[in-house]
Amino acid sequence: MFKPHFTALAVTAIDGKIARYPGHLSDWASPEDKDALHAELDRSDVVVVGRATYELVKDRLDSRDCLVFTRSVKGLVRQGEHCLYCNADQVNLADVLVQYGYKRVAILGGTQVYSWFLKHNLIDELYLTIEPLVFGAGLPLFATEVADQHYDLVAVKPLNHRGTLLIHYRKSSYANT
Amino acid sequence: MFKPHFTALAVTAIDGKIARYPGHLSDWASPEDKDALHAELDRSDVVVVGRATYELVKDRLDSRDCLVFTRSVKGLVRQGEHCLYCNADQVNLADVLVQYGYKRVAILGGTQVYSWFLKHNLIDELYLTIEPLVFGAGLPLFATEVADQHYDLVAVKPLNHRGTLLIHYRKSSYANT
Repeated sequence: MFKPHFTALAVTAIDGKIARYPGHLSDWASPEDKDALHAELDRSDVVVVGRATYELVKDRLDSRDCLVFTRSVKGLVRQGEHCLYCNADQVNLADVLVQYGYKRVAILGGTQVYSWFLKHNLIDELYLTIEPLVFGAGLPLFATEVADQHYDLVAVKPLNHRGTLLIHYRKSSYANT
Repeated sequence: MFKPHFTALAVTAIDGKIARYPGHLSDWASPEDKDALHAELDRSDVVVVGRATYELVKDRLDSRDCLVFTRSVKGLVRQGEHCLYCNADQVNLADVLVQYGYKRVAILGGTQVYSWFLKHNLIDELYLTIEPLVFGAGLPLFATEVADQHYDLVAVKPLNHRGTLLIHYRKSSYANT
């Protein structure tokens, strides 16, 4: 059976913000976070990313296959060799993944895309990098109300001597409805 | 010299929310977090808390001295044996702390109170407990824009087998302006 596996990857400030404002580059993230991110992307078949985030990061995604969530297209539209634009509310994502053989899916944000997967209860794993700084205000990781979703802590790992933490969670197998 | 020391204590969901809505009791926090919290409060001379949060937690603060931030009073008003109501924008907090001999200050939130101390660049230490669940939406830890404030990671400690983490940060001595 073809069962896709969804891994969300995010880097936040101590106060849970993924950016100060839309378009804010994650140049405040440590090199060690980028290394961990790309190691996970190497294990993935496709990267799912929102249109705005895609514009920010596409140069660093090299030749990785991307599924770009956007409301600007109807259904699914190919955009170049490695990129599909996808209106997530107009396609059956499971069918798209089967069609292209994308089994291991990396979710790179932003807030709207993380929230879409949370709302559909699809996040199997979460790698959360916390950089040791505070923004005070900015964009949250999620912005959609859901019933409590419980996760198991798999590991927590200091990534460097500056205090960056990588926390690995896996969806709890028993506590979620 | 009388130099107060400010420690903020907060428990959040994985996604950085301190509560789902104003008035949401932190009954989702683990017993081990409450133990860690009260151990820190035992080391503190006074608890600073917003009026709404105070109403939620006062029964559990026992006979601890409290400074309750509220705009409902002018300046500083005593309210019972252990409690002072304080309009933080109308008093000199440093003077109040000297007057009452409060040297070690524990900041218990909510968002507005955490933000007040952040904005005034007063948070020396932060104990952040992350419970392994996601709310999706809710109240942020901070809601005030500041220039990047850097912290040093002092320790990260699993509090139980359910995946609760206690992360201890200290204001970075060199990187903040």
